[in-house]
Amino acid sequence: MPTRRHRITVSYDGTSYGGWQIQPNTPTIQEEIEKAIKTITGETVRVHGSGRTDAGVHARGQVAHFDLAKALPLTSLARGLNALLPDAIRVVNARHVQPDFHARHSAVRKEYRYFIWNAPVVPPFLRLYRTQVRGRLDETRMRAAAASLVGEHDFAAFTANPTRPVAGTVRTLTRLHVKRRGSEWVIIASGTGFLYKMVRSLAGLLIRVGQGDLGGEEVAAILDSKVRTAEVPTAPARGLTLWRVWY
Amino acid sequence: MPTRRHRITVSYDGTSYGGWQIQPNTPTIQEEIEKAIKTITGETVRVHGSGRTDAGVHARGQVAHFDLAKALPLTSLARGLNALLPDAIRVVNARHVQPDFHARHSAVRKEYRYFIWNAPVVPPFLRLYRTQVRGRLDETRMRAAAASLVGEHDFAAFTANPTRPVAGTVRTLTRLHVKRRGSEWVIIASGTGFLYKMVRSLAGLLIRVGQGDLGGEEVAAILDSKVRTAEVPTAPARGLTLWRVWY
Repeated sequence: MPTRRHRITVSYDGTSYGGWQIQPNTPTIQEEIEKAIKTITGETVRVHGSGRTDAGVHARGQVAHFDLAKALPLTSLARGLNALLPDAIRVVNARHVQPDFHARHSAVRKEYRYFIWNAPVVPPFLRLYRTQVRGRLDETRMRAAAASLVGEHDFAAFTANPTRPVAGTVRTLTRLHVKRRGSEWVIIASGTGFLYKMVRSLAGLLIRVGQGDLGGEEVAAILDSKVRTAEVPTAPARGLTLWRVWY
Repeated sequence: MPTRRHRITVSYDGTSYGGWQIQPNTPTIQEEIEKAIKTITGETVRVHGSGRTDAGVHARGQVAHFDLAKALPLTSLARGLNALLPDAIRVVNARHVQPDFHARHSAVRKEYRYFIWNAPVVPPFLRLYRTQVRGRLDETRMRAAAASLVGEHDFAAFTANPTRPVAGTVRTLTRLHVKRRGSEWVIIASGTGFLYKMVRSLAGLLIRVGQGDLGGEEVAAILDSKVRTAEVPTAPARGLTLWRVWY
């Protein structure tokens, strides 16, 4: 049966989910979307995301694809999915794509944003989407450390994977930048690919730099070591949002 | 025993609460704060708010007062309360006030903000704090209708109270204004006092005006009627935030 490939852009509040990927005993984003598609179309499909997001991590612009035999107007599809999905998950865009489009393989760049609230009190309305850091953060030092990590490097010291990934641990960060507006700090990380927990590890490191626990030389030594140690904490999931995926 | 009067400013996400005021079988903001004060000081106090907020209504700057026999540094008090309170409730400020200060009686003006998201999709991160309105809203008509309600009026048509309040139903709206930025619309309501569900009723009316269901003459007739009818819907609690109280 001929099928049509669909691409959707999805925003979600990951707080109550075990992450993107289907797994037993915890609700996941992928599972909710596949269930909703099944209800609307009667078709059992596999929804392929641009990548997994971990438990508690959010997305503003996750991208996914799936194939449908049934021809449905795109607006009906998006509306139908949003009517069925929990309001923590929203399909913000749906379109037809060429059969060779692949949400993961076709992605050329991804941007993550890590949000820090640097003040004694986190506004209740932001509490699920910000990591609180108390005490002073040094913007200049954080920016310098971030800049030193941009480019192609072996980021083995910044992944939580116990085993070396098949594709190796060399990745290219095209941007790693610290922005600040009042109490809100944002670490923007763009790259062609990311290792498991890489952005949260970079955020964990940059927070320690900002707190004065680590200097530029130590950051360089950690990168060069290619070994993950307790020196690099994994920053909490709630601060992380998959911002955008480019194709 | 001599006591010292304390004033606190409190922000809360009202989603999971039965409102400000203590009541059976549902957690309330007042109850959580009184419990936390009891844990810290050992004192059983009554916390008086500037007014009640309904179930599901939020606050950015609710103000409350209470009396303590124990002398505690203010920063320790605020920090201690925030350590004990759920993170949906935050004490953003604590100070000593004169014994004649009363959170409700001393208030001279209050501002509420009603947040509408006018787009097909509500971003998941805002879903608990916005009321979604689909379809076109007419800004000019909403603004004109809002302006026509400013001033001292009998707002009996805009309260959900089944019985006439002791203090009557005449109130003064010093400001009722509609602001818009992209998909976000905010109705700003300031006044010296508000009736039960008055802001949500005004929001419900203004939304109907924006949708073209009601015109300026009908708004005038509803105000003049002094009778609450189904013509004025109560807009959902999630869109409402008690913004600020002036003393």
